[in-house]
Amino acid sequence: MNIKRDLTLLTDFYELTMANGYFEDDKKETIAYFDMFFRKVPDNGGFAIMAGLEQVIEYLKDLSFHDEDIIYLRSKKIFSEAFLTYLKEFTFSCSVWAIEEGEPIFPNEPILVVKGPIIEAQLIETMILLTINHQSLIATKASRIVRAASNRAVLEFGSRRAQGYDGAIYGARAAYIGGCVGTSCTLTDKMLKVPALGTMAHSYVQMYDSELSAFKAYARIYPENCTLLVDTYDVLKSGVPNAIKTFNEVIVPKGYRPKAIRIDSGDITYLSKEARKMLDEANYPDCKIVASNSLDEYIIRELLIQGAKIDLFGVGERLITSKSSPIFGGVYKLVAIEEKGKLIPKIKISENVSKITNPGFKQIYRFFSKKTNKALADVITLNEEIILKDQEYEIFDPNNPWKRKTLKDFTVKKMLVPIFENGKCVYQTPSIEDIRNRCQEELTRLWDSVLRFENPHEYYVDLSQKLWDLKNEMIYSHSLK
Amino acid sequence: MNIKRDLTLLTDFYELTMANGYFEDDKKETIAYFDMFFRKVPDNGGFAIMAGLEQVIEYLKDLSFHDEDIIYLRSKKIFSEAFLTYLKEFTFSCSVWAIEEGEPIFPNEPILVVKGPIIEAQLIETMILLTINHQSLIATKASRIVRAASNRAVLEFGSRRAQGYDGAIYGARAAYIGGCVGTSCTLTDKMLKVPALGTMAHSYVQMYDSELSAFKAYARIYPENCTLLVDTYDVLKSGVPNAIKTFNEVIVPKGYRPKAIRIDSGDITYLSKEARKMLDEANYPDCKIVASNSLDEYIIRELLIQGAKIDLFGVGERLITSKSSPIFGGVYKLVAIEEKGKLIPKIKISENVSKITNPGFKQIYRFFSKKTNKALADVITLNEEIILKDQEYEIFDPNNPWKRKTLKDFTVKKMLVPIFENGKCVYQTPSIEDIRNRCQEELTRLWDSVLRFENPHEYYVDLSQKLWDLKNEMIYSHSLK
Repeated sequence: MNIKRDLTLLTDFYELTMANGYFEDDKKETIAYFDMFFRKVPDNGGFAIMAGLEQVIEYLKDLSFHDEDIIYLRSKKIFSEAFLTYLKEFTFSCSVWAIEEGEPIFPNEPILVVKGPIIEAQLIETMILLTINHQSLIATKASRIVRAASNRAVLEFGSRRAQGYDGAIYGARAAYIGGCVGTSCTLTDKMLKVPALGTMAHSYVQMYDSELSAFKAYARIYPENCTLLVDTYDVLKSGVPNAIKTFNEVIVPKGYRPKAIRIDSGDITYLSKEARKMLDEANYPDCKIVASNSLDEYIIRELLIQGAKIDLFGVGERLITSKSSPIFGGVYKLVAIEEKGKLIPKIKISENVSKITNPGFKQIYRFFSKKTNKALADVITLNEEIILKDQEYEIFDPNNPWKRKTLKDFTVKKMLVPIFENGKCVYQTPSIEDIRNRCQEELTRLWDSVLRFENPHEYYVDLSQKLWDLKNEMIYSHSLK
Repeated sequence: MNIKRDLTLLTDFYELTMANGYFEDDKKETIAYFDMFFRKVPDNGGFAIMAGLEQVIEYLKDLSFHDEDIIYLRSKKIFSEAFLTYLKEFTFSCSVWAIEEGEPIFPNEPILVVKGPIIEAQLIETMILLTINHQSLIATKASRIVRAASNRAVLEFGSRRAQGYDGAIYGARAAYIGGCVGTSCTLTDKMLKVPALGTMAHSYVQMYDSELSAFKAYARIYPENCTLLVDTYDVLKSGVPNAIKTFNEVIVPKGYRPKAIRIDSGDITYLSKEARKMLDEANYPDCKIVASNSLDEYIIRELLIQGAKIDLFGVGERLITSKSSPIFGGVYKLVAIEEKGKLIPKIKISENVSKITNPGFKQIYRFFSKKTNKALADVITLNEEIILKDQEYEIFDPNNPWKRKTLKDFTVKKMLVPIFENGKCVYQTPSIEDIRNRCQEELTRLWDSVLRFENPHEYYVDLSQKLWDLKNEMIYSHSLK
């Protein structure tokens, strides 16, 4: 049974009241440009990870109103019949550009751009934001946790504490993109090919008369992949000794080696060190130790600093909800319209200068040093500008335009790639493995100062001179009104 | 198109490895009892609100493995064919009891109890926890926000920042149960009958040559229900004057009254006071003021203390993610098994005394004073105990059993009601309106000291003498091992 849902009505009601307004006011042919961007990286990090594009594409491919949607909308008694007919008959015709999944993304740059008839472009706001906000949030959190675990595997274990079913399903997808090695969520494996993993809960151990008999029963059934949960009663007095006994009496005689023990409570630093000694002394130096229990990047870093002997981390609720920073604040703003074929840039002025939007139809170039292969800066340009790799390019701080720097010997990458052209999908979605690999690769191209958790260096996201001029002209002419 | 999904595989992978283990070990007929309970109220509140039961019921009614699920599971190469055949053929046969939606719930009491064959009872753990954790989290947060808004309406506006689609859809349902008057999420209205509401975004105003022409266009289309967003440019210099002009020139001539203005940025206290004066002077004392922009119970309380003139609050990201406390930590623990028809209570011992579980098959009685109609205490009993309303009943603090108190003149309510009997649903799910009304009513039966936000009084959740004796015997005999 395929999990295909009709999410067309998963839109804020005001998208529909506005759409009806545009329709009644004969603006339905007006072409509008919207940017999705965000202003702040969760957890005060130096960058976020783009995720969710594949689900946005699926949604846009399926976008259409069915009879029962129309019947429902009619029952609200505020939409005209002509508008309802338009909804029933419309087919998606927008163009969409986006930064690919797995790429590092930065505040204030457009990560997704929509161009199309205003009604359509407005209607899809909620789902675009919801999808990318959610998955980018979790991919970003996972990336932090995986970096904290430095070279140790991190498993996503949070389904039961996720905020709804899709929180679990797509949260596990995003966590995998961010660097986790697998998930506890079986459905995500089946639907999205993220490896599902898992062994036993305390209740399994309690179902038997003794811990040892539970361990042995499990070992007999899963000798190849035997991970035992050792903290149901007492980790060091009973759990680890019973695990070793099970390895000796069941696993080794069957010709296998034990996989791991898991500790889910208590002082994990101390317990893991003692358990490590006991396993080593019993000739199981290859038996790994898995730790779980309300972990996140802060606790993992602390455990490792204290010398905990942990090989794998199972991370649950604090990853799947991004507990310490549970909102990814992406917004979707009008940046231009077309009138008689002419592009009219739009700007949203705010007393808070950082909230003034970047007007116009834009592109982003990411500069990499040829020498170090590291990312130097992103420059947001007007769409028609071209930056060539073998020329010098002067960047400047948009807030302090006298701070200038000339880049040489660089390569550039256009970050916004075509996803839909006039309603037709022109993008081949990569496999989840490719997305995950891209994420890992691109992180090696960020300076450590951008990667660090505390007070990261603010990566340059600059405006081209042309875009800066346009923006400042518009601010200036607005202030004269 | 009905949003019916197959969520049977939305289960932690270890539920399946354990189930296969029970099957192979010939434990599949063993009857197990599990309790769902939680240990801590989000935001350090005095109580939570039960929500999500309707979706648990739908899930349990649909629970079955389809061919493609079996094919997927077979591909993992760790499950026996006999087990896969069992999965394909099984029909849900557990009994379930639960506290009804909309009821206040307290730490450490069973809010849902499952009795049934261990494989089934284990398999449904993830979905039960996920569903009730999520919706109870949001209902509880909504209840806090609604109480902070004291008698003013609160609208749920958070879809775009929800953690996944179900975060938006069922989050809106839970927010409504908790006391919100509606949602921005259109799909929740269609699917679940939570009223959807909404008017316009900044982009609507920007689509027109001027704010005034946007307002007038909107007013012409929606004269009956005209709410104008007044902060696209400048609330007091342009937004409110243009709104008043629109009311004068479009709304009143058409024979209507304006509905509201909405302020979404800036110093809301100051702006709302000034806007109120301007509207009153223009003879629109009936025009309401809606405030939105990163609100929660703390900010709303502050605004009202400062005298902000707000009639309705639109609350988004901080409600739909329960930002300040985004996890509801419900757990699902084995409390008993049956062996040869005899109930064997199970206990999970922990060095952390508060984490020791309450063993056995249990019921909860809630005591209400006949005089004040207020809730006095919950007492968790063994299932066979009966508490009669016209007798005295002595309660005691389970941690300090010498602290005793005799209750008289009370009524009692059995809190755990039958939901499934041997796989058959025996519960008639109330309408969402009835659930919401129950929530409001039951909150009037809590003392103010339990309702307050800061350091609420800890409501009594006591154990009956029989249960306390059983628990302490089990702890004692465990410590002798």
